[in-house]
Amino acid sequence: MIPKQQPAWLEAAGSRFDPLFTPLKIGPVTIKNRFYQVPHCNGMNRLHPSAMARMRGIKAEGGWGAVCTEQCDVHYSSCHPRELRLWDQQDLPILRRAVEEIHAQDALAGIELAHNGFHVHNLETRAIPIAPSPVATRGIAPVHAREMDLQDIRDFRRWHRAAALNAKTAGFDIVYIYAGHDMTLPVHFLSRRTNQRKDEYGGSLENRVRLLRELILDTKEAVGDRCAVALRFSVEELVGTHGLSCEDEGRDVVEMLADLPDLWDVNIGDFSNDGQTARFSDEGFQDRYVRFVKTVTGKPVVGVGRYTSPDLMLTLLTSGALDLIGAARPSIADPFLPRKIRDGDFDDIRECIGCNICVASDKLAVPLRCTQNPTMGEEWRRGWHPEYIPAKDTEDRVLVIGGGPAGLEAATWLGRRGYETLVAERRPDFGGRALQEAALPGLHSWRRVADWRLGQIRKDPKVTLLPRNDITAEIALDTDFSLIAVATGAVWRTDGTGRGHAAPLPGLGTVPVFTPDDIFAGRRPQGRVVLYDDDHYYMGGVIAELLAGTGCEVVFVTPESLVSAWTVNTTEQPRVQKRIIETCAEVSVSTKLALLAKGEAELACRFTGRRRRIGIDAAVLVTGQMPRDGLYHDIATRIAAYKPDISPPRVVRIGDCLAPGTLAAAVFSGHLFARTLDTGLSDRPPFRRENVALERDQALTGDAPYSNGST
Amino acid sequence: MIPKQQPAWLEAAGSRFDPLFTPLKIGPVTIKNRFYQVPHCNGMNRLHPSAMARMRGIKAEGGWGAVCTEQCDVHYSSCHPRELRLWDQQDLPILRRAVEEIHAQDALAGIELAHNGFHVHNLETRAIPIAPSPVATRGIAPVHAREMDLQDIRDFRRWHRAAALNAKTAGFDIVYIYAGHDMTLPVHFLSRRTNQRKDEYGGSLENRVRLLRELILDTKEAVGDRCAVALRFSVEELVGTHGLSCEDEGRDVVEMLADLPDLWDVNIGDFSNDGQTARFSDEGFQDRYVRFVKTVTGKPVVGVGRYTSPDLMLTLLTSGALDLIGAARPSIADPFLPRKIRDGDFDDIRECIGCNICVASDKLAVPLRCTQNPTMGEEWRRGWHPEYIPAKDTEDRVLVIGGGPAGLEAATWLGRRGYETLVAERRPDFGGRALQEAALPGLHSWRRVADWRLGQIRKDPKVTLLPRNDITAEIALDTDFSLIAVATGAVWRTDGTGRGHAAPLPGLGTVPVFTPDDIFAGRRPQGRVVLYDDDHYYMGGVIAELLAGTGCEVVFVTPESLVSAWTVNTTEQPRVQKRIIETCAEVSVSTKLALLAKGEAELACRFTGRRRRIGIDAAVLVTGQMPRDGLYHDIATRIAAYKPDISPPRVVRIGDCLAPGTLAAAVFSGHLFARTLDTGLSDRPPFRRENVALERDQALTGDAPYSNGST
Repeated sequence: MIPKQQPAWLEAAGSRFDPLFTPLKIGPVTIKNRFYQVPHCNGMNRLHPSAMARMRGIKAEGGWGAVCTEQCDVHYSSCHPRELRLWDQQDLPILRRAVEEIHAQDALAGIELAHNGFHVHNLETRAIPIAPSPVATRGIAPVHAREMDLQDIRDFRRWHRAAALNAKTAGFDIVYIYAGHDMTLPVHFLSRRTNQRKDEYGGSLENRVRLLRELILDTKEAVGDRCAVALRFSVEELVGTHGLSCEDEGRDVVEMLADLPDLWDVNIGDFSNDGQTARFSDEGFQDRYVRFVKTVTGKPVVGVGRYTSPDLMLTLLTSGALDLIGAARPSIADPFLPRKIRDGDFDDIRECIGCNICVASDKLAVPLRCTQNPTMGEEWRRGWHPEYIPAKDTEDRVLVIGGGPAGLEAATWLGRRGYETLVAERRPDFGGRALQEAALPGLHSWRRVADWRLGQIRKDPKVTLLPRNDITAEIALDTDFSLIAVATGAVWRTDGTGRGHAAPLPGLGTVPVFTPDDIFAGRRPQGRVVLYDDDHYYMGGVIAELLAGTGCEVVFVTPESLVSAWTVNTTEQPRVQKRIIETCAEVSVSTKLALLAKGEAELACRFTGRRRRIGIDAAVLVTGQMPRDGLYHDIATRIAAYKPDISPPRVVRIGDCLAPGTLAAAVFSGHLFARTLDTGLSDRPPFRRENVALERDQALTGDAPYSNGST
Repeated sequence: MIPKQQPAWLEAAGSRFDPLFTPLKIGPVTIKNRFYQVPHCNGMNRLHPSAMARMRGIKAEGGWGAVCTEQCDVHYSSCHPRELRLWDQQDLPILRRAVEEIHAQDALAGIELAHNGFHVHNLETRAIPIAPSPVATRGIAPVHAREMDLQDIRDFRRWHRAAALNAKTAGFDIVYIYAGHDMTLPVHFLSRRTNQRKDEYGGSLENRVRLLRELILDTKEAVGDRCAVALRFSVEELVGTHGLSCEDEGRDVVEMLADLPDLWDVNIGDFSNDGQTARFSDEGFQDRYVRFVKTVTGKPVVGVGRYTSPDLMLTLLTSGALDLIGAARPSIADPFLPRKIRDGDFDDIRECIGCNICVASDKLAVPLRCTQNPTMGEEWRRGWHPEYIPAKDTEDRVLVIGGGPAGLEAATWLGRRGYETLVAERRPDFGGRALQEAALPGLHSWRRVADWRLGQIRKDPKVTLLPRNDITAEIALDTDFSLIAVATGAVWRTDGTGRGHAAPLPGLGTVPVFTPDDIFAGRRPQGRVVLYDDDHYYMGGVIAELLAGTGCEVVFVTPESLVSAWTVNTTEQPRVQKRIIETCAEVSVSTKLALLAKGEAELACRFTGRRRRIGIDAAVLVTGQMPRDGLYHDIATRIAAYKPDISPPRVVRIGDCLAPGTLAAAVFSGHLFARTLDTGLSDRPPFRRENVALERDQALTGDAPYSNGST
């Protein structure tokens, strides 16, 4: 970090937060402070094990008192396509690696043991999924789960116990029973919806909670001497009387098990409720559901709610709402959040913007990325650290043209490296698309992307911000900067080309056409508007919402079968589509915009090609984007024409100017440039990777040891 | 295999197929016969490397003259989420393992080098995808590809060449350039749709084919001394003048490159066209598109078309349509197809049913499974072989109750093991759901599941088939069978419960209700029918098609946003939805059936809950299924009451009776039982697995070697 002057108020302020730094006993272990990284998926898991482990270690280094794994399957009949496994001791090395990383930083290591019951399909292992009652598995896979008999229940308890013992062997301090998010066997047994058993495990709540109680007792008996036994439980499912509710059976369960677990880790389920984005929820949105838990149990309680505000955290503790501040997303956006609160570096906290690009990474089974923290997922493979960066190793002076997310991120870290850096921006304010998009409905938190970087840069004498400066190639090359990064962003295509249309939309010019760039600039259509979304992330949806709110009659058309289809990955999709249906005049999915004509749009069914016309006053095209890279090419062309005796500056593109994408990708691009002073592709991967190891000791032919083994 | 009498006609017949067993020179290598396993994905790839390698080895053992890998990415800027990699020498061990397996059986090993250009998103590596012109990446991910400049093209050629050299090092005999299925860089350059370049790589076809020509020349120069250089190319894309067509540019490309590659591997693109199911295409469906290739080039040509008929294969060769019979799916359904043709064992060929459950496995990133061949994907991890099974190791005599797919599969292999087996079936014919479903539109090939097994069983004196025999628990236990497998299948739920409805649908009894079981039994609704599909695989769609064909006015309702949504995984979905829209009166997606009332159905929007009523005469419910396991429980209960001095028989359930699922799952369940005499779960996995190896030699903290390396 940059050496900085400690403000005078710090010492006094520091003491105010002391309650957050008070140790707490959790069963047989003690957490050093009240910062608790609850289990969260990360897309790295067992397939990128050192990356997963190092990411956890960085969290511990950043001050989290406890750092937990993602869910860890206890048996091959729970075969999650991603996530960790502890099917037997063969899986221990990966888990040990995580424990070592966490322990090296003096934090507690927690493991979330899980059996996903009928939530999974076991397509890899081909084991029939198991459930309290026979039922189709979750989602749409053509797989049914079978009912567990009493022997199956005994078997499952034995597997869970074996996994707990293995977890203890691996060195974990906290061992979870996972009964949350409607995703695991104990909650399937708890649920009136999915438990139709007639025996002692079905019927009354006392019966339905039996398996969960047994698992807690089994685990305490097996590992409770050295490990805390935590229960992760969703007290509210937001589905009314069919589900667990904090005013009904959700509360009853907490009362029945009150002091049995050493720790209650509580939230609201399912995961789309627990992991709501900032577009649909505010910081602390879970508080009113989980607040009762502390009144029922004497054991420590941890809860979550995208908490990034130190004051709110303090209040939660001192008001008796929670004992421990749980975090998944805030610990991803800023792994050093606890340290920064301890040190009074409040302005340095990189606050989670609640966009769920992290969740999408996990859904897509790729290493976790974060809009605010571009080092996330790169800690091990590229050796990146969220707070430290090597000092400069060249004599470059850097001109960054464009003060959007990529430009600001680059300047922030170039400055920290010691590079003299100038950021020129043609607008009066810095932030680029982060500011533009933050003005759209529900995206206010996008501002944090600009705010954090500007806050850092303004403290850094190495970086100069130059607003209202529309730099040309001539001017750029007239300076003595040795390295120029063009970060001029992208424009939305005005001709409808993109995923569906390789060629421009027929009939352009017959109807007023708008793009997101027009909306950003304050140009708005009126009357009946067809909004054609061939982008499929949030932009089409939020602009439709904006226009509907300003009186337009919006016809939302998309070739995908869902509105804002990619938001399936951020868990927002059902909420988005509900809102669009309720605010727009008409929604046509699986439909292409075929052409525009005077006062009309012709729509075509994606499957049959059948066409129909609708009357419109204007069209909003949210289709492809093009890099705004004219300046880059102008500079590059001039450099190519330099005389051989002149050593020219280097020029690169970063962010959307290189390739339009997410905010997270723009920030990442800026960060990559700050680290490497380049954006190109190398012949070999510029990162480490780990491959699957071959079991070489088996003969090439003949029956394998397990060929006929059913046990 | 069972020792059997050779029929008298075999010798003469054998000679007739000699052309299929004539060697052929392919560049510097020679293939021993005309059976060529073209590259195909398999869901095992680099994540299950020994399993992938052993599967390839089994194909070679079965007589395929050449066995190729799935696609293999040459660079980290082409980061397919599954598939193989050859980014650098770190990836060689996995590939070497495959080569060893293939060479051990005297077959040629081929590798399909690939760069997916803008077809992939590189979310794992975070490298910006590259393309001939700037474009949104394929699908809906918020990622754009950037335009390659001339240096990028030189770089790409260097990466491809390095991969070819590494492939030669690994021992491969055939090295592919992959320009097929609209999925790779060379075809992106070829395509008028995606190449808008103004330089020597864009514009005329001569320019657009330049990169492909260079790649072929580069590869021949690099490895052509020892390796054949193959070109995989889609000559027809079925998109009219926008795409490659065998009457236009598809043909022109073949003419321009005619004798440049050592082998032409030709098909139709994209993959949803190449991999059509039997529901939408017949054996040999590609023939008319690819037939011209042999007239243009002097080099060997391999083509595909779900060929399983030896006579057709022979005709293709002798008529000059192809030089080599290519196969992906037929080689999965029967890895020993070539050997069986050679040996005249035509009746033993397990013919592919064209269901694409194999394709779905790959899409879902799980080991390849096959309806006809349950050993697929289990060759290494469970040591299963498609043709051999260990002799019996107990003294059991086995009663199989139910002659559907699971029962017949179990009996087939129990018989081969030497177990005396009786299959009792209450119907007059054997085949169960395979026969019932084969009567539905487009599913005729499902019959092959029954036919192959019955053919095998009828040759086996150990197995007795007992039709028209409705066995009770009393009868079952009155026999002297020591092991009873109940394979009585499943029933479709009649009350609408399933994924969407945990409780029975309100209003049952007010309207005539039908399920798939009624349809199988010949009971048909009439008039205006609401078909509620909460199953989402093929059943709802094919029944809708059947009913519409018999005069019903069908309103197709499903809570998913797509018709037959799971068929996305079998690549059929767009074709299914087109057909349903064109045959049904109305299609309501994202809609739940909320209740039935006299003459009406109430539908509810899945997102908003908004309701509307429609008039109907009947409802067809395609929702959940229940195992038909009454007999099993009856037998189990009686066994539990046996006196302690009597050694009771064991009883298990197999197939849909254990858990309803796909045909493939039923066959697998029967096979698993035949191998293990059990269906239960064991404490530890009953199969081997390979984990990712940790790179342990790195320090826990500090910068990694690659931290700042851009090259």
